[in-house]
Amino acid sequence: MTNHFLHDFLRPKSIAIYGANNTFGTTMGTMQLVRIINSNYKGKIYPIHLRLETVLGYKAYKSIADVPEIPDLVIIVLPPQVVPQVFKECGEKGVKRIVVISGGFRELIGDRSNTLTKEIVQIADKYGMRFIGPNCLGLYNGWIYPEDDATFNMMLWKTEIKRSKFSIASQSGTLASQLWLDSEYPDFNVGKAISVGNEANIDLVNFLEYFKEDEETEVIGLYIEEIKRGQEFIQLTKKITPKKPIIAIYGGGSKAGNRAIKSHTGSIAGNIKIFDSMVKETGIIKTDYIEEFLDISSILLTPNFQYPKGKRIGIITFAGGPGALIANNAERNGLIVPEFSETLQSKLKSMLPHTASWSNPIDITFDMNIFNLYINFPKMLMKSGEVDIIIIYGAMGFQDMTSDFQQNEKISQYIEFREDMAERVDEMDKLLIAPGIKLSQKYSIPIIYINPQGYGSEWSKKIRKYGGVAFRFWDRPVSCLAKICDYAKYRRKIT
Amino acid sequence: MTNHFLHDFLRPKSIAIYGANNTFGTTMGTMQLVRIINSNYKGKIYPIHLRLETVLGYKAYKSIADVPEIPDLVIIVLPPQVVPQVFKECGEKGVKRIVVISGGFRELIGDRSNTLTKEIVQIADKYGMRFIGPNCLGLYNGWIYPEDDATFNMMLWKTEIKRSKFSIASQSGTLASQLWLDSEYPDFNVGKAISVGNEANIDLVNFLEYFKEDEETEVIGLYIEEIKRGQEFIQLTKKITPKKPIIAIYGGGSKAGNRAIKSHTGSIAGNIKIFDSMVKETGIIKTDYIEEFLDISSILLTPNFQYPKGKRIGIITFAGGPGALIANNAERNGLIVPEFSETLQSKLKSMLPHTASWSNPIDITFDMNIFNLYINFPKMLMKSGEVDIIIIYGAMGFQDMTSDFQQNEKISQYIEFREDMAERVDEMDKLLIAPGIKLSQKYSIPIIYINPQGYGSEWSKKIRKYGGVAFRFWDRPVSCLAKICDYAKYRRKIT
Repeated sequence: MTNHFLHDFLRPKSIAIYGANNTFGTTMGTMQLVRIINSNYKGKIYPIHLRLETVLGYKAYKSIADVPEIPDLVIIVLPPQVVPQVFKECGEKGVKRIVVISGGFRELIGDRSNTLTKEIVQIADKYGMRFIGPNCLGLYNGWIYPEDDATFNMMLWKTEIKRSKFSIASQSGTLASQLWLDSEYPDFNVGKAISVGNEANIDLVNFLEYFKEDEETEVIGLYIEEIKRGQEFIQLTKKITPKKPIIAIYGGGSKAGNRAIKSHTGSIAGNIKIFDSMVKETGIIKTDYIEEFLDISSILLTPNFQYPKGKRIGIITFAGGPGALIANNAERNGLIVPEFSETLQSKLKSMLPHTASWSNPIDITFDMNIFNLYINFPKMLMKSGEVDIIIIYGAMGFQDMTSDFQQNEKISQYIEFREDMAERVDEMDKLLIAPGIKLSQKYSIPIIYINPQGYGSEWSKKIRKYGGVAFRFWDRPVSCLAKICDYAKYRRKIT
Repeated sequence: MTNHFLHDFLRPKSIAIYGANNTFGTTMGTMQLVRIINSNYKGKIYPIHLRLETVLGYKAYKSIADVPEIPDLVIIVLPPQVVPQVFKECGEKGVKRIVVISGGFRELIGDRSNTLTKEIVQIADKYGMRFIGPNCLGLYNGWIYPEDDATFNMMLWKTEIKRSKFSIASQSGTLASQLWLDSEYPDFNVGKAISVGNEANIDLVNFLEYFKEDEETEVIGLYIEEIKRGQEFIQLTKKITPKKPIIAIYGGGSKAGNRAIKSHTGSIAGNIKIFDSMVKETGIIKTDYIEEFLDISSILLTPNFQYPKGKRIGIITFAGGPGALIANNAERNGLIVPEFSETLQSKLKSMLPHTASWSNPIDITFDMNIFNLYINFPKMLMKSGEVDIIIIYGAMGFQDMTSDFQQNEKISQYIEFREDMAERVDEMDKLLIAPGIKLSQKYSIPIIYINPQGYGSEWSKKIRKYGGVAFRFWDRPVSCLAKICDYAKYRRKIT
């Protein structure tokens, strides 16, 4: 693995940067260097600047020739016209790796054979240099120092970054860098992200080669506007998807989308039908919406998630409405919500109050035995062999519920807490979630917990602590699950 | 208005409640009374309990007959078998309004003519009483005390409740009560919510009559599993939708959904085709997903939102990928993303750097003139008459961006803040958002701002402060907008 040339690209021990200065808001180069410093990057930093003595506290150099060593990586954020000259100087210095943030190459006139691009490609070839871009935002590597909190980040709009085994290569800088801003997903993160830009020298196929063998990559995300090396892309993804899922979002297809793409990267957008048949052949999971892109990734990154063996879904809910909506939308998305066998129904019926229902969805309604919702019924469904996936609606945190009673003195002074219950509240996750996840692993049947208190609530965090999947909106996971089922089927067939 | 019988139902000056006690976690009645107390309800509370002297600090009464006045509203959370007897006693006392939380009536055996239901309907008729339920969670009224923070809440799972002019009547208690738990939507709230239950005495049509004239209701949300009085429902909604939008989510349609509905409320689920044609005839906005239900409501509740006069969308973005994805998904959802006229394109081109694009989407990419993004380009599009809706991607908060520079001393000690910029950052909303919203009102063209920093970020809050719409995910508003366009068209045709 470590001999792939991109491995070192993501782990520079020293960098030089063109285009940063000391004034807020003036250049993108400054923003990028600020992000690198904020990410606690531990390598050496050599700003290149014609006039300044220092940049953000680092000694500046008038040219790359003056830098006291050959930097592992050079970052260029300058007007496009000067980039060829900078490339030459880098080549002379012995530089091997460059990131060209600057835009205005081929997208300038929508012409692939733009001379500026040709020029830098030729110079790079001459000196044996590789480069990402032009017209990109660069990269982020959360794994550069595995033992530390430090990262190497020149583009992510987030200060406190945790890492995951989700790696993204994107033809949109935005998609690579601005997905992680919201507190709704406090513990869902990316591990490596690369904004590939115009791919004049390094393209998606290169990054896929790298991600294929990379141990820090388990799930791959792509944003695609154009595939340059179609055959290589197909052959490679076919080798990857049996082991690592690839989730792709495609920016082309519609008239306006294609128009946007043409001016964005200057590429000729592909035909949506060709793209879709390619997706089918390669087992890539395709989605049209960012939120689904994140949802699917989040499910697949969940440590104890089990790939479903079929499309049959069992719904256990403590409320009728969500049960109906999950069932409706599951069928709409191609999942199956089978009516349970008579044997299973009569078993369930015997354990439920008369107000409940037991045909699928199981609606426990007024059943106060929470162990049925979390453990007993999931176990019965798993043992029955009648479902491949279980969705539980109403996995809500007890602490949030008890706080209703405890926070208001008008109530807390009068209420009697049954001692066994008070004691148990803090340990509920051990009693309810842990055994459910174990069952899920034993039977290889995924459980999706739905907690309307939200992704960031304490209880949802606990669910994820045990390696479980937690959603807020009850009807949102079904479209993701349908796509994951298709992928799981592809995987079974191939392997 | 105030003479509709439901007006008083939602504003009781005194309540009696059956089924509450002093022990945490034992009965739903206790939970409901806790919520009422937590909502700072200011009326009198009379718990009815056979054995207890006090319930949560309130003097308890052995029977309704002992209560020193006729309570405005009685809440019953008891086993169904005893409800008829309680109804009789309430009738004898002179009670006029009841909420029957208890389940286990007709859903018990899936039989509409369940004798228990018949019995309570007859008793209510005999004594001239009206009741909500059975098998419901009751109601919430955020407008009971217009001058105060206090509300009347027996079911919402949220302690700090703000109110809006969004009123919900729902055949699912969950949908009426558990949508407001998440911090993702910190300032999106409901004003009135009713869980209508089995509708043995008061049904959706009654609540629609009430919402129709209610000044505290501007947008109506419905969750529907079954419509009991079809003709009345259609006639009434046709009168409402020209003035107040109705957003409906339907729990039926699929085999499993219908099965779920049958056991949930005991009703025979309708045919999806009949439902869809009814929706078309009445101008109801139908959605299949909870999140879209909330998104559409949230857009329509935005104070300065303008109904679009057509389906043509103009996209202004500072990043190519989001522009392409918005365009793609807009077309997929039936919106139009027209290529701008040559006149407009050449005007835009003259104001943009060569790296940008101007055909629609407008991708400003490396243009640092933020006033173009927020004001100049929206104004040009509005004046052109070529678009009906504008989406702006990249409406991001400056304060969050400057904090990257200021929080880390390794950077802040070196960076020069241009004084004019530092001064302006705090006032950016006045310079950028306020004029945009004014333009939107002047030209009656809605602007949707997309800020990847999230709904809860400071900048998004400021956008909403000026009555603007802010989304996080760039491709999420288009499906909502397509539905809103259909509704706007219906409204124009009717009025």
